[in-house]
Amino acid sequence: MVDRSLRETSPDALHATLAEAAGAARIWSSLAPGARATALRAVADDLAAASAELIPLAIEESHLGTDRLTGELGRTTFQLRMFADLLDDGSYLRASIDLPDSAWPPAPRPDLRRMLVPLGPVVVFAASNFPFAFSVAGGDTAAALAAGCPVVLKAHPGHPRLSARTGAIVAAALAANGAPQGTFSVIHGDEAGRSAVTSEHIRAGAFTGSLQGGRALFDLACARPEPIPFYAEMGSLNPVFVTQAAASVRVSQILAEFATSFTLSAGQFCTKPGLLFVPADEVSDALIVEALATHRSGAPLLNEHIRQGYEYGLTALTDHASVRTVVGDESSASADPTPSVLATSVADLLKASDELLVECFGPMSLVVEYADDEELLAAASAFGGQLTASVHGEEDEAIAPQLLEILSQVAGRVLWNGWPTGVSVTDAMQHGGPYPATTAPLHTSVGSASIERFLRPVSYQTMPDRLLPPALRQENPLGIPRLVNGEREVV
Amino acid sequence: MVDRSLRETSPDALHATLAEAAGAARIWSSLAPGARATALRAVADDLAAASAELIPLAIEESHLGTDRLTGELGRTTFQLRMFADLLDDGSYLRASIDLPDSAWPPAPRPDLRRMLVPLGPVVVFAASNFPFAFSVAGGDTAAALAAGCPVVLKAHPGHPRLSARTGAIVAAALAANGAPQGTFSVIHGDEAGRSAVTSEHIRAGAFTGSLQGGRALFDLACARPEPIPFYAEMGSLNPVFVTQAAASVRVSQILAEFATSFTLSAGQFCTKPGLLFVPADEVSDALIVEALATHRSGAPLLNEHIRQGYEYGLTALTDHASVRTVVGDESSASADPTPSVLATSVADLLKASDELLVECFGPMSLVVEYADDEELLAAASAFGGQLTASVHGEEDEAIAPQLLEILSQVAGRVLWNGWPTGVSVTDAMQHGGPYPATTAPLHTSVGSASIERFLRPVSYQTMPDRLLPPALRQENPLGIPRLVNGEREVV
Repeated sequence: MVDRSLRETSPDALHATLAEAAGAARIWSSLAPGARATALRAVADDLAAASAELIPLAIEESHLGTDRLTGELGRTTFQLRMFADLLDDGSYLRASIDLPDSAWPPAPRPDLRRMLVPLGPVVVFAASNFPFAFSVAGGDTAAALAAGCPVVLKAHPGHPRLSARTGAIVAAALAANGAPQGTFSVIHGDEAGRSAVTSEHIRAGAFTGSLQGGRALFDLACARPEPIPFYAEMGSLNPVFVTQAAASVRVSQILAEFATSFTLSAGQFCTKPGLLFVPADEVSDALIVEALATHRSGAPLLNEHIRQGYEYGLTALTDHASVRTVVGDESSASADPTPSVLATSVADLLKASDELLVECFGPMSLVVEYADDEELLAAASAFGGQLTASVHGEEDEAIAPQLLEILSQVAGRVLWNGWPTGVSVTDAMQHGGPYPATTAPLHTSVGSASIERFLRPVSYQTMPDRLLPPALRQENPLGIPRLVNGEREVV
Repeated sequence: MVDRSLRETSPDALHATLAEAAGAARIWSSLAPGARATALRAVADDLAAASAELIPLAIEESHLGTDRLTGELGRTTFQLRMFADLLDDGSYLRASIDLPDSAWPPAPRPDLRRMLVPLGPVVVFAASNFPFAFSVAGGDTAAALAAGCPVVLKAHPGHPRLSARTGAIVAAALAANGAPQGTFSVIHGDEAGRSAVTSEHIRAGAFTGSLQGGRALFDLACARPEPIPFYAEMGSLNPVFVTQAAASVRVSQILAEFATSFTLSAGQFCTKPGLLFVPADEVSDALIVEALATHRSGAPLLNEHIRQGYEYGLTALTDHASVRTVVGDESSASADPTPSVLATSVADLLKASDELLVECFGPMSLVVEYADDEELLAAASAFGGQLTASVHGEEDEAIAPQLLEILSQVAGRVLWNGWPTGVSVTDAMQHGGPYPATTAPLHTSVGSASIERFLRPVSYQTMPDRLLPPALRQENPLGIPRLVNGEREVV
């Protein structure tokens, strides 16, 4: 029996879905922020209430574990509620009022009031590796809906039934809370996804996945007759640098933490530490093998596509003349891969950076030995845009500030004595970075600031109070934080 | 004698300039904001001190008048000082601190601190119509330098000697105030401009000019191996809608103001009102002719390129079967054009929107007569992205909120009983809009918020205080506004 949810969305059905999203935009965007907050909380409540149904579906389709998926569903409902709180607070509107000033240079200033408004319908591409938190009801969906933008969600084929079920819950909860038909819908199939990116009804796109996939969609978005912003998060190598001083004090502890981090969820995180730079004289194969001792069992990958990609990437690295295998994949051909650690030197890495500085999504990492601080700094300077870069060091080391300065140039998040896996959902989180980590270095796809991707500013000039949006009216009926003449308004 | 400043920048010279900009980036970006503020104020002081030299040069090369150019230079120095004040204030860094929270869902939250950092070297394309405020030392340059980004300024060929002289003053003032060589440089020639957009050293671009030129550069920026943000402001039709009620009370006054606005600086503003929608039964050719009575003299256009483009565009509109000429260009072939007003109906406009909804840069505008409110709303719904849209109405009219809602969907700035020319430089100004007004609907190219185009967020996780940037250290040594756990920090 063919599962309906597996069918690709037909061009006719897609056309209807996109037109409905465009129709819904005006109503959904003009609801009071508090009304959208209520709807988002209802989505969170209904997803939480359905966990006994959703978690088993997710396990079946993603092969991830119960604890991981339970935590991820908790993160998903937390994100929805965080955006609801953000709507209630209102600071996300960035309301700013400049009162008239006849002495303003070079010409008198009129009454000007600026706030952010929704961009319009957004197409969101779900990821495979977070079947909840970066999928149907994930961060991109929550941020766009909170901003006031209808969402057309392109489901990931890795978990089609979970996508359909989650989508039905989201749509029902929204509909029961004042959202018009078309505020949220799920589409299936790559061709439908590409068509959505080029549709006149779509005003922005968001994506989490591979560099190849993200770049192709970004190119489509830019080549439109009317280009639209396309926010693709495309992964990262997430290099980790262990200084001489840190290694001499605690190399075994660092290697143990490294093993835990890169094998988490079978290495299927875009924040997996893909490279560990350690001083050659402080590390040995024996130490690495010892660190992996409690991480030798295999774990299933998300799907056959990911598995094939992993095997291909691992083989290419393993077979590279400059790379040696410290811990190899010990699984038989058809079994789940066990964690691998490869090794090379900075000199060899820099000579073959095109082949070795590539993301290999799965349970492997590359240890890179450096001879001295000069090599360490040279290695740190070799990276393009990264989601994260980490340093394990001692804070009074001379090299620490140099290393951090270099890494701040390329990474969205810089960690000290920490591991990049585990992305906290907060105000101050930055999950993004220069290309090729993302196509949009000014933005984050995790945390409250991710709502900014779906909002644009509008200024109202000499507008009568009653015709202004409530957020900008003189009496501040929404009670939101605002700037007046550049200063925080006293309420 | 060939003026050196007219020579196109050679590939070798360009290469050296771009490499210097890249070298300057680390130093300029890491100066304390206060040091960059001092340098920007010095630029403003030196430009103001050179006005007796610069204004005549500008008049000679742009054909604009003394008053206009004096005001524009005042605006330019004001912008530089505004950004200096912004640097001193520090709120532009959007510093945000989330303290550790072991109860944070779904996992304990680490110490996370987020702020904005400079993107890196920016190529800025100067405009012809604002030889000061959107040229060498204009808003884009001021915003990028303030952000901490070196600027490679592609001069507009319309005012080469003014560009060279202004550039020399800017570079000298910066150098005298701690900016390294390469912080600011001027390049000449379209090929050099295109090469800069595709250079590995350049991290963003900004442009003010034509749709064709802006789109071509945007496409280059997006097609790079590593795409970069490209902020093109490409002009606008700036439709103005006069409601039935407003017209019945004060159509003559509105037409007089309209004539003043669209003929200002010979219509060479990207905010020129290009279309005026008026009720058919309240307007007549005689009233329009009367409104133009004090605006019949010719004025020189900026340069021959602009003049040819204007003549071509005006002829195409004048010759269109659906358009009649109410006030024609009365100049002889070689003389300066006098203001023109053409007219059509909403029905004809919508039938031929591809030919009639096009910007014609110069002293002309199109009056569009509508029969009833239904036609007015249909016309308002016909527009793509605009820098501005204006309504002249009475605030208790039923149509006012409908019209404003439609226009807020497409315009960056919505005006009530005002005229779009005259863009105030303030916090709450939005000079931007959806495509084709710009390539970056989330941003403004005028006002303090324009600095955001050149900054990207970085989060620091569990970083020791001494290794954090000063803006994020616990004791807040810069004394800047910050959020701590989402609340404004109490200083």
